[in-house]
Amino acid sequence: MIVELISVGTEILLGNIVNTNAAYLSEKCAGSGLSCFFQTVVGDNEERLMMVLKTAAERSDIVILSGGLGPTEDDLTKETVAKYCRKKLLLNEEWKKHIEEYFARRNVKPTDNNWKQAMVPEGAIVLDNPNGTAPGLILEQKGCRFILLPGPPNELIPLFENSVKPYLEKITDSAIYSQTVKLCGVGESAVETKIKDLIDAQSNPTIATYAKTGEVHLRVTAKGTDAKEAKKLTKPLVKELKSRFETELYTTEEEVTLEKAVIDMLAANGMTLTCAESCTGGMVVARLVNVPGCSEVLKSGVVTYSNKAKRKLLGVKKSTLQKHGAVSAKTAEEMVKGAVFTSKCDTAIATTGLAGPDGGTKENPVGLVFIACNVKGAITVEEHHFSGDRMKIRESATAATLALLRRCLLEYIGKTAFGKN
Amino acid sequence: MIVELISVGTEILLGNIVNTNAAYLSEKCAGSGLSCFFQTVVGDNEERLMMVLKTAAERSDIVILSGGLGPTEDDLTKETVAKYCRKKLLLNEEWKKHIEEYFARRNVKPTDNNWKQAMVPEGAIVLDNPNGTAPGLILEQKGCRFILLPGPPNELIPLFENSVKPYLEKITDSAIYSQTVKLCGVGESAVETKIKDLIDAQSNPTIATYAKTGEVHLRVTAKGTDAKEAKKLTKPLVKELKSRFETELYTTEEEVTLEKAVIDMLAANGMTLTCAESCTGGMVVARLVNVPGCSEVLKSGVVTYSNKAKRKLLGVKKSTLQKHGAVSAKTAEEMVKGAVFTSKCDTAIATTGLAGPDGGTKENPVGLVFIACNVKGAITVEEHHFSGDRMKIRESATAATLALLRRCLLEYIGKTAFGKN
Repeated sequence: MIVELISVGTEILLGNIVNTNAAYLSEKCAGSGLSCFFQTVVGDNEERLMMVLKTAAERSDIVILSGGLGPTEDDLTKETVAKYCRKKLLLNEEWKKHIEEYFARRNVKPTDNNWKQAMVPEGAIVLDNPNGTAPGLILEQKGCRFILLPGPPNELIPLFENSVKPYLEKITDSAIYSQTVKLCGVGESAVETKIKDLIDAQSNPTIATYAKTGEVHLRVTAKGTDAKEAKKLTKPLVKELKSRFETELYTTEEEVTLEKAVIDMLAANGMTLTCAESCTGGMVVARLVNVPGCSEVLKSGVVTYSNKAKRKLLGVKKSTLQKHGAVSAKTAEEMVKGAVFTSKCDTAIATTGLAGPDGGTKENPVGLVFIACNVKGAITVEEHHFSGDRMKIRESATAATLALLRRCLLEYIGKTAFGKN
Repeated sequence: MIVELISVGTEILLGNIVNTNAAYLSEKCAGSGLSCFFQTVVGDNEERLMMVLKTAAERSDIVILSGGLGPTEDDLTKETVAKYCRKKLLLNEEWKKHIEEYFARRNVKPTDNNWKQAMVPEGAIVLDNPNGTAPGLILEQKGCRFILLPGPPNELIPLFENSVKPYLEKITDSAIYSQTVKLCGVGESAVETKIKDLIDAQSNPTIATYAKTGEVHLRVTAKGTDAKEAKKLTKPLVKELKSRFETELYTTEEEVTLEKAVIDMLAANGMTLTCAESCTGGMVVARLVNVPGCSEVLKSGVVTYSNKAKRKLLGVKKSTLQKHGAVSAKTAEEMVKGAVFTSKCDTAIATTGLAGPDGGTKENPVGLVFIACNVKGAITVEEHHFSGDRMKIRESATAATLALLRRCLLEYIGKTAFGKN
């Protein structure tokens, strides 16, 4: 089945906001086994929206519209779709009650124009929207299905997950199951080479590759007659991926990030962590703090941007800085040693490098970053050469630091477990 | 004149990447006085791209296409536009040389398919692309102008700035001048209230408001017969904005960020900075390190996530933590005091708060953040209540910290300057 996305909103056409809804919906539609050939953005203008609607309805089976369901005069997505489908708008008593309750909970009085949001096209399916006052809507006209969703992502996403996804499964008469497999410490092309045979042979399930900074995510998607069968179909391929990416695979759960995987490993082993950053300048610790409850594990961090700070806060030797320079394997090594010593944590990471744009030399070019990890005294130092601008180099170094920490922890835990046997 | 955007790329339709190019181009086109009514995304497919091209050419004066100019078989934007315009592709010797030199500089041998990028439609204007091997192109057909740009933002943005913008000015027979005015420490609605009369009265120049996390950007745009006249037209309004937002206005330069403004103020006054972060967990220092050359000013940072780290690294008193709690004005105050004392820097900032999602109480709800600033012993503490998820609260707190630091520096510098007189 072919799906098409229409985003309605003048603020997108002015470049005021980035159209993240389209990216979200596209990914979800692909995950539901639908083919998306077009995305369109149009302003809050009846004539132009009507033009786009006609074109979309002629070439697609499903049209998902987002935005333009607000209470003001400008918002005319629902009105225009109803007009195109030749449906009257009728007051929906149930949704009127939802709006009343929504405002009552917030101790706010609804304004007159809010009741506009309780008007529903004749025969439309009303989808619940717990986070807002505009319902999601589904209308059919001559075999084309129109799905209308509110623009704010905190309304659109739960509405899609809870109402649209099951609806799509019903109409495609098949259930889709997607399993995410997240890898770190390995590049996209290396991943693709390693699974070329699986990609070439894919039919059901399929594999899609998504390159992220310092990570590669794979999505295994299967179609079945029901959810149970679809899930079962993904299993052999996920198992195969697990065996091919034994150490690089850090999770098969959608909501688990690399920083969460690392924090969880440390927590499970009762370990504590400190960070000593130079070129990443707080980015590593900032990512770790993303994880709720990280305080059990992450005790402190220092950003030692100057040589003086490296010496004072981490005890890096003056002679090391003079002989090897601040950007060197030896400095990175002394940074993690000092970090563990001063913080009394079990583990530490350190970064030192040249993020640019200036300061590079032939020997020490911009992009050169040394990353060190100290797990209970076992120190590993890696040399990396990243490309891109200052921000990109720092983001890449941050991802590589988390990947190194994870690998060192795996080794440590493996040895400990082995020792126990 | 009406402009329309076509983004070509299956990766956008799969939700693999977010279409930031469309947001960038839309904003720039609006800034050039063009009206953008439609944005379309289409895959790397000749038939569907041709369909989109036809529709766009019929309803718009200018069509800007991005993506699909790469060297592989999949990339067919140029070929399809040439076919639509009935133009032959001819080898452009000059661009062939550019490609040869591009690879030679990188010590890489071009592959056979790279020469495809030296083929240029008959009569097309070739736009230089110093960061890539695909040239930008401009073609005309029956009064519609097609502008073709490569997809990677690091190629597209300089190409637009250096070649497309001047071209648009030429064909619109008018020059557009945009002046950005960036504000911090003030909310969007407060800004709009304060300039409502200016917004209501706007014609030439116009004012557009862009809300960012913790900042509001205003864009003043004027149209004139030449650049000089357009620039002159913006001046009275920019001056008026400067007088209305005396302390909140931190720059009128597009490329200056809040972190750069702060680093520049410190550098100009020969001052040094250290950061002591709890709930922001490295985000403040990570933003400051975004600024190239920050090492002159930013000496160190600590992330004291645990109470123990607050005591050990910053000398926060045990009794303070027990009596007032870690999330308190008193703790924030002791954090900046300790940060200056241990680092020997002139200035320090500190953050302590509840980013959630758990740990909130009635007295200390999630979103409560105390921010402190110490400028040569003068300490200011602010209490904030931010909303949103963990990430949003931390980002808001980070922006508010930079805004507070700037305000405290202004006060200090003002007093010093006054003292000198």
